[in-house]
Amino acid sequence: MSESGGLTRRTESLLRALRTRHGRRDSEYCFCDGLRASREVVTLAPGLVELVILREGTALPFPSPVEPVILPQSEFDRIAPTVHSQGILVLSRRPEPVPLDQPMADPFALVLDRVGDPGNFGTILRTARAVGLHEVWLTRGTADPFSDKVVRSASGAQFFLKIRYGGDLTELAADLRKLGVKTCYRTLPASGGNVFLEPDLFDRSAIILGCEATGVAELENSRGLNIPMPGDAESLNVAQAATVILFEYVRRGGQALY
Amino acid sequence: MSESGGLTRRTESLLRALRTRHGRRDSEYCFCDGLRASREVVTLAPGLVELVILREGTALPFPSPVEPVILPQSEFDRIAPTVHSQGILVLSRRPEPVPLDQPMADPFALVLDRVGDPGNFGTILRTARAVGLHEVWLTRGTADPFSDKVVRSASGAQFFLKIRYGGDLTELAADLRKLGVKTCYRTLPASGGNVFLEPDLFDRSAIILGCEATGVAELENSRGLNIPMPGDAESLNVAQAATVILFEYVRRGGQALY
Repeated sequence: MSESGGLTRRTESLLRALRTRHGRRDSEYCFCDGLRASREVVTLAPGLVELVILREGTALPFPSPVEPVILPQSEFDRIAPTVHSQGILVLSRRPEPVPLDQPMADPFALVLDRVGDPGNFGTILRTARAVGLHEVWLTRGTADPFSDKVVRSASGAQFFLKIRYGGDLTELAADLRKLGVKTCYRTLPASGGNVFLEPDLFDRSAIILGCEATGVAELENSRGLNIPMPGDAESLNVAQAATVILFEYVRRGGQALY
Repeated sequence: MSESGGLTRRTESLLRALRTRHGRRDSEYCFCDGLRASREVVTLAPGLVELVILREGTALPFPSPVEPVILPQSEFDRIAPTVHSQGILVLSRRPEPVPLDQPMADPFALVLDRVGDPGNFGTILRTARAVGLHEVWLTRGTADPFSDKVVRSASGAQFFLKIRYGGDLTELAADLRKLGVKTCYRTLPASGGNVFLEPDLFDRSAIILGCEATGVAELENSRGLNIPMPGDAESLNVAQAATVILFEYVRRGGQALY
């Protein structure tokens, strides 16, 4: 794309379309907003970056693989998805998804089953990266990991992690078992093995976190996994549950174990 | 307040004022939006509830301590803070703050030092309740725990927890030491004792989490506390850091230890 004097009308309507679910469907592009996520995208996936767009007066605090397009405030504000934008947008192509039959990159598979809230979803991706995972598995019905909201809340971790897109939970579990997964753990609010005591929790397993409203789907031949909650609360936010499980992996020695 | 036929102009302007920081300052009221948080407020603190406001057609799924006021859609939407409101608002008085010199209710003090994001702040309150804590300590500069955004993201946990409002971190640490706190732990991104190995972490200690942008303030005679992050990430979201620490407390036996 060449936009020397400003954005073409075509680019502007692409950016607008990418903010809707419909516009993202089948698009090979995505965009991100904000300093931290933009820096990650540009650093992790420079070859995918199509455009770096700056609001007039914003300094670019990292090297860019392409010549930035500088827009006057009014024009920038028209395309920025947030009211308090930090003055930088990056348009990039999406990373290639990883085929479901490729050997696993981690000792266990983190599976998100129809997680819908962009804040929760992004936080889980960011935390998965922080503990040293290389990939995340999604069932059909999970939010789009490359929507601008999820990219922002994940600080761009989806450009580091490999994303595997599966069918429903039963289909995805079959794919995982073909790759050697022995046990599928469904996180449950009030029953199942204790996350701090379950012995082989991170050994060729799949750990499945579910939709905020309805929890993890049913799955034959799975085990329950429970996070003990001694206090007075009904349930834990799914991103907090993911954090407890992922740092239990770190506590037990993480990758050093394998 | 009596609002048989609808809201008085005075109530409506109070609700509007409570959405701004200025309007909340020195107000004895707060309000919450959404089903889950409203149920918690009504259940945990029925004596504080002044008004329960419903959008016409919304069924009240829990008993209310006061006769609900039912508003036509257009009138309800004018006062609702979110576009996709679930059709229920609760106006209540704020719980009394706990004096700083009252004996501690928990084996350790969870301290938030100028945490500003309502989503992070609320998530930490909700998680503190889930692990069995009874109170949370705030330094001056921390967000208002009774803003509608924080109440929503905490699912009303601030009506369960006691909140202690301190001065700056040095002043608050002095108050805590007077109550018998032996060690103040400052969470740090890359140094300090390992949260999974530090022996007396939850024994008459204060564990301090800091502002998203600048971290925990300096504090004399404190120890560093670190969450190991083997993966490729700069830092952890403050709510995720709090979750790791609070569930390490659960893993070690929580209150059963004391």
